[in-house]
Amino acid sequence: MPELRKDPIVGRWVIISTERSKRPRDYNISTARVSEVGFCPFCPGNEASTPPEVLAYRDADSSPNSPGWSLRVIPNKFPALKVEGDIERVGEGVYDRMSGVGAHEVIIESPDHNKTMADLSLEEMGNVMLAFRERIVDLKRDSRLRYILIFKNHGAAAGASLEHTHSQLIALPIIPKNVAEELAGTKNYHDLKERCIFCDMIRQEARDGDRVVLENENFLVICPYAPRFPFETWVLPKKHYSNFEMLPEEELQSLASILSRTLKKLAVGLNGPPYNFLLHTGPTNTDKDTSHYHWHFEIMPTLTKVAGFEWGTGFYINHTPPEDAAAYLRSLEE
Amino acid sequence: MPELRKDPIVGRWVIISTERSKRPRDYNISTARVSEVGFCPFCPGNEASTPPEVLAYRDADSSPNSPGWSLRVIPNKFPALKVEGDIERVGEGVYDRMSGVGAHEVIIESPDHNKTMADLSLEEMGNVMLAFRERIVDLKRDSRLRYILIFKNHGAAAGASLEHTHSQLIALPIIPKNVAEELAGTKNYHDLKERCIFCDMIRQEARDGDRVVLENENFLVICPYAPRFPFETWVLPKKHYSNFEMLPEEELQSLASILSRTLKKLAVGLNGPPYNFLLHTGPTNTDKDTSHYHWHFEIMPTLTKVAGFEWGTGFYINHTPPEDAAAYLRSLEE
Repeated sequence: MPELRKDPIVGRWVIISTERSKRPRDYNISTARVSEVGFCPFCPGNEASTPPEVLAYRDADSSPNSPGWSLRVIPNKFPALKVEGDIERVGEGVYDRMSGVGAHEVIIESPDHNKTMADLSLEEMGNVMLAFRERIVDLKRDSRLRYILIFKNHGAAAGASLEHTHSQLIALPIIPKNVAEELAGTKNYHDLKERCIFCDMIRQEARDGDRVVLENENFLVICPYAPRFPFETWVLPKKHYSNFEMLPEEELQSLASILSRTLKKLAVGLNGPPYNFLLHTGPTNTDKDTSHYHWHFEIMPTLTKVAGFEWGTGFYINHTPPEDAAAYLRSLEE
Repeated sequence: MPELRKDPIVGRWVIISTERSKRPRDYNISTARVSEVGFCPFCPGNEASTPPEVLAYRDADSSPNSPGWSLRVIPNKFPALKVEGDIERVGEGVYDRMSGVGAHEVIIESPDHNKTMADLSLEEMGNVMLAFRERIVDLKRDSRLRYILIFKNHGAAAGASLEHTHSQLIALPIIPKNVAEELAGTKNYHDLKERCIFCDMIRQEARDGDRVVLENENFLVICPYAPRFPFETWVLPKKHYSNFEMLPEEELQSLASILSRTLKKLAVGLNGPPYNFLLHTGPTNTDKDTSHYHWHFEIMPTLTKVAGFEWGTGFYINHTPPEDAAAYLRSLEE
């Protein structure tokens, strides 16, 4: 009998097929490659073909917007939102709109064109985490911005258009719907129990162990109870911080280490799949108390071509129970 | 300046790029084809390779599960849910699950393997609408079921695995999250204004005309104000019915006609794109009043490879303003 399982945070039900559990080889996985165009604007030497950098970790004797960097953050050349301008809110009959003020940046994670995020050295991965934090801390000083999204599309099937490893940041003057739902879910639970639902979940998962992929002193990696996608994997901080940028310096390396191990396991076990990687963190510049939120990463390999039906209904059918996915990922040698 | 627009029903914000509006030829549209496997279980003569039909429109002198049908409804051979069994609800610590009781059926829309839904004759399309209604009316007698989803994945990129034109029906013991959100949105508006938000929207759209694709006596076809996808198109009944099955007999042909014209426009204008087609209708067997809901169809062409980022955040970036999409679809000769 298939199972219906409910995500405890947002209340989303998913169907988990328990009878014909699909293993990795049952999915038609296309190893993530983006069609190469020859010229890569993210490679060292091509700095002039991107907008000027807003942050870079580079050799002391190198100049901005020239080679010698190990990580580089630039505004997106084709931004979805514009930094300049005032926020204007307009009603049109039953509709609402506002001006598209915000930021859209690209974090180039390594100068090496041939590395994926899973291939980054621990130092490089640590720098990526540091850059995420630095950009968030800088952008949240802009009081017009309410939410900073950080995400990565790896591989064409996951929406990437350039192969050179990079993440994206979109800073928004509104709180996106799914974030608002997670905020409402964590608040409801906190109002009821005076505890954080993520903290309760982490304790339960660490004790049960069935869905645990990896664990270290500060982080727990699980395949969640009600996953939308096969091999969906979450990286959860054990200590409660609502926002990513609250993570103390000494935990950044521990995060870089476990994230790197997680991405390597997914790359080895699923044949270098396309995936989306999302930072779920609390909002900024809100006058509401959002300390009940619990930041985390969600990684969603693109193994199936579900598409619009799931988009349209919010209803997901998953043929790999998370217990099987976690057992498989655990079993891979590191 | 890009615009942020809010869907008035569920409150989802989307970014609409107004400056570099993408036209159909700017999308890399792969005409919807599913890789052929030679044998088609949905073709006449192959009835024995599917589960026995639960409904068929067929010649008076033909026998069940043999050729001579014009439309055929069968249980899905690999159902996501099982009809047999009791609903058991179980808690597991912070989690909830229930047994996967439900129905999963396939509506084979035509015996002709080479027709798409857009190619169906008016009579065939009328039969499809009738079959949707008949199956809903039959299944809602099962008091365990709370929601009946009807949808179509057209083309491999939209999730189809068989080419022969068909829709699917999934009957669920729960109300899916997006439906619950639409119910909450329409209820809030009704509580506030004692009017239906869809009815208000339909009046506003018919008056403005900018986003109207087609209109007949009973239906209005629009590209919605805050569309998630380029060329997203909704078919809205002008008269307020919460549930699809309430549509009177005399409006079924009018619906078949406008739906057919809409699909033809999308097929001609977008080069036969993959798409998802969803029936949004009210729930069944609920003791709550859901008369404030307003059934409709949503059609979402698969022109972009957005994927997990949008899944994960509920946040969409659309490079074709709906006013441009509607103007283009209107301009196509019929």
